[in-house]
Amino acid sequence: MEMDSSNQDKSSGSFSCITAIPGKFKAKVVEFTEKTKKIGQDDPRRIAHSAKVGLALTLVSFFYYFRPLYDGFGQAGMWAILTVVVVFEYTVGATLSKCLNRGFATLLAGALGIGAEYLATLCGEKGEPVLLGILVFLLATTSTFMRFFPSVKRRYDYGVLIFILTFSLVAVSGYRVNQIIQLAHQRLSTILIGAATCIVISIFICPVWAGQDLHNLASANIEKLATFLQGFGDEFFSFLGDECSVVASKDVKSFLQGYKTVLNAKATEESLANFAWWEPCHGRFKFHHPWKQYLKIGVLVRECACYIEALSGYINSKPQVPSEFSIKIHQLCVKISLESGKALKDLAAAIKNMVHPCATDTHIKNSIAAANELKSILESSSSLAKPDLQEIMPALVVASILIDIIKCIEKISESIHELSGKAHFKNNANSTITPEKQQQKQLLHRGIVKPINDANCDRVAIEIHGTCEDNSSKK
Amino acid sequence: MEMDSSNQDKSSGSFSCITAIPGKFKAKVVEFTEKTKKIGQDDPRRIAHSAKVGLALTLVSFFYYFRPLYDGFGQAGMWAILTVVVVFEYTVGATLSKCLNRGFATLLAGALGIGAEYLATLCGEKGEPVLLGILVFLLATTSTFMRFFPSVKRRYDYGVLIFILTFSLVAVSGYRVNQIIQLAHQRLSTILIGAATCIVISIFICPVWAGQDLHNLASANIEKLATFLQGFGDEFFSFLGDECSVVASKDVKSFLQGYKTVLNAKATEESLANFAWWEPCHGRFKFHHPWKQYLKIGVLVRECACYIEALSGYINSKPQVPSEFSIKIHQLCVKISLESGKALKDLAAAIKNMVHPCATDTHIKNSIAAANELKSILESSSSLAKPDLQEIMPALVVASILIDIIKCIEKISESIHELSGKAHFKNNANSTITPEKQQQKQLLHRGIVKPINDANCDRVAIEIHGTCEDNSSKK
Repeated sequence: MEMDSSNQDKSSGSFSCITAIPGKFKAKVVEFTEKTKKIGQDDPRRIAHSAKVGLALTLVSFFYYFRPLYDGFGQAGMWAILTVVVVFEYTVGATLSKCLNRGFATLLAGALGIGAEYLATLCGEKGEPVLLGILVFLLATTSTFMRFFPSVKRRYDYGVLIFILTFSLVAVSGYRVNQIIQLAHQRLSTILIGAATCIVISIFICPVWAGQDLHNLASANIEKLATFLQGFGDEFFSFLGDECSVVASKDVKSFLQGYKTVLNAKATEESLANFAWWEPCHGRFKFHHPWKQYLKIGVLVRECACYIEALSGYINSKPQVPSEFSIKIHQLCVKISLESGKALKDLAAAIKNMVHPCATDTHIKNSIAAANELKSILESSSSLAKPDLQEIMPALVVASILIDIIKCIEKISESIHELSGKAHFKNNANSTITPEKQQQKQLLHRGIVKPINDANCDRVAIEIHGTCEDNSSKK
Repeated sequence: MEMDSSNQDKSSGSFSCITAIPGKFKAKVVEFTEKTKKIGQDDPRRIAHSAKVGLALTLVSFFYYFRPLYDGFGQAGMWAILTVVVVFEYTVGATLSKCLNRGFATLLAGALGIGAEYLATLCGEKGEPVLLGILVFLLATTSTFMRFFPSVKRRYDYGVLIFILTFSLVAVSGYRVNQIIQLAHQRLSTILIGAATCIVISIFICPVWAGQDLHNLASANIEKLATFLQGFGDEFFSFLGDECSVVASKDVKSFLQGYKTVLNAKATEESLANFAWWEPCHGRFKFHHPWKQYLKIGVLVRECACYIEALSGYINSKPQVPSEFSIKIHQLCVKISLESGKALKDLAAAIKNMVHPCATDTHIKNSIAAANELKSILESSSSLAKPDLQEIMPALVVASILIDIIKCIEKISESIHELSGKAHFKNNANSTITPEKQQQKQLLHRGIVKPINDANCDRVAIEIHGTCEDNSSKK
């Protein structure tokens, strides 16, 4: 003990090094635990998904454990495990897509493989491997090339892969295995059992619907742009020092970052739309829900996000000694920004609650009116005192970009109206009574629906068994 | 014949329907052929890749055809075919990533599986399936959850999948198959043979390097922005009716579309960078080439593309009766736009030829000078005649966005200088002589390098064995 302390000075370098390793290790473990916690908290469905995969695997492994099942399928039970591991995806759509692709590709390629095998046996013992080799080469080459077709890649990529695999296995292994039909039957049934296990667990235990995710993503992205525009309105006018903007400036960072994720949402949106195409009707989504329309909306939303990116550079551009003219322009910019934000908020809420957007047009009209007022002020500017261009330039640029944003929002609104029509969104109370409306009213009388009067909208929001969220509660 | 013609009027509907089917079919076939041709022409490496997959499959199917090989491996030869189909990807990096992931995951999971199996046998006949079931469930659940970690998903996603698969197969099948070690040995060797076949064919026959593609993509994206800015300069000033801009306006559509693809390049860039990480040194790329730096450049380039998106709305905004003041602003905007375009062109060429960017700073300085001139004109505007705000507003907005673009280009230039430093790009002739330079000079004397004097750049470009392209030939 004494020696240790006497040597402490000399060996302090190596000593700290030794204590640093467990310290570092501890830090790593803490970091890892926090990361794990965060990933789980961000989306608790991930934990459920992991458990679902574990459950599916445990279920199919019964093929090996129980003698009656094992006697029926033998080593082919392996294919059930393989199918579950490879096919079980996060969303129902992705799982279904892989299951159906795997199933049909296996059937088709199996049949073709047996045909090729039969054809090859006609060529004699020497010709058989040559013909089979040529067939495998040709089929693998053309199928691989097919995977470069965008339409094939989007939906049937996995199917083509399994097609090549199964054809090669059947055609080639058939050369040795005589009971090819029995083998094919065993494999097919185990693959079917594996796939069915995945589908049932995926759909009936905490399902993650790609369609629902796409729907929520579209709404959330529009909401993010709305938050930016509303925050920008406050922030841009803050040089007058009103209190409300001071509060808002604390959250500047969060709303400044929000729109950036919108810019990169394309890949996620496209894969979700592809998976949603495979899903059966679920929740509020019918079988032929117009998923493609979400992609169109996505393109417009990203265009709008681009304008916002250009706008974000002006968030802190405030005139030093604002002239009356400059204040007027600023005020109008703020009005356009706030009204545009409200229009987008309404559109986001309309998608979220699947109701026809009702207040959007009013907000768009308000922002257009403000833009027109701005234009007329600029026109009449030559009759006023000479403006200091350097001072008002940022405001002019902001105004101009905001006018572009209004145009963009008009397009988004149009696109969402189209979606509303195609997907039969509920109408608001102002419109004429549709058959669906009548049905809702009947439901109302039967006492399972509670009406909520939204002051802004004068709409009757419907809440059925807790599946439909109402936006009025968030206001 | 006569009856046909007499009935023609009556049956014209069904008749045209019958002829329409082969017509429609023919049209479909023609369309399909053209599509196939286009996909092949767009990137002829796709045809080569398809043939490579066919070749690899044919090679590994020899396991079944030839008795000596078949006797050694038996049905395990199937795993070689499975490995080739699943592992062979378009780029070398992706193939290597899958092969290494598969290899290590199989080894690790195999060892763990045997351990689990041994542990389970200690629990007696009744306890064995229970313990194995619990182990499979726990391992599958935690591994599946690991796949949600971004760092795992990026590089080891496939490895984790194979890990779950192999562990389940080994642990579960071990319950029946006694010669588990021999089976594992057979499977491992066939998987190794399949993977080795893929790697060799992928690297040595028309290799598609993800790194090279990422490098080219970065250069091409910057080039697209440059083309837009240069075209925009011409187009924006075309209200004066000079001939050169009339010629340019024909290509408006093509350069207007170019930058749009840049906005959506994120997903491609990221996957290429991930695959490039796995690739050995090749061509002009060393082992530790800074692939991450390309992603940083990509972010900045997309930001710039966003500003360009905002700019593109003003491409046709020309004043009706341009005042002298307006023309002056326009002229300066055009100058900024052209110089920015040249700066980006130089940066794109620098990446492409892997030389240190040399003329960029001059062009950036020129555009900053023009921007400053513009600012001073705006400052002095109050002393001039009163400007018509409505008329000059588009030009002001364009000027302001262009100034943002200059800032963005400065950042891109900085980032490319960083890349140039990390990746040891060649220096130009102006700089001090580095050891590499000295080596190049020695090569020059040995007569295998031909010097090309670029008038703009005063740089000595090096061409070694035709692997290095020179941009001066494209000018």
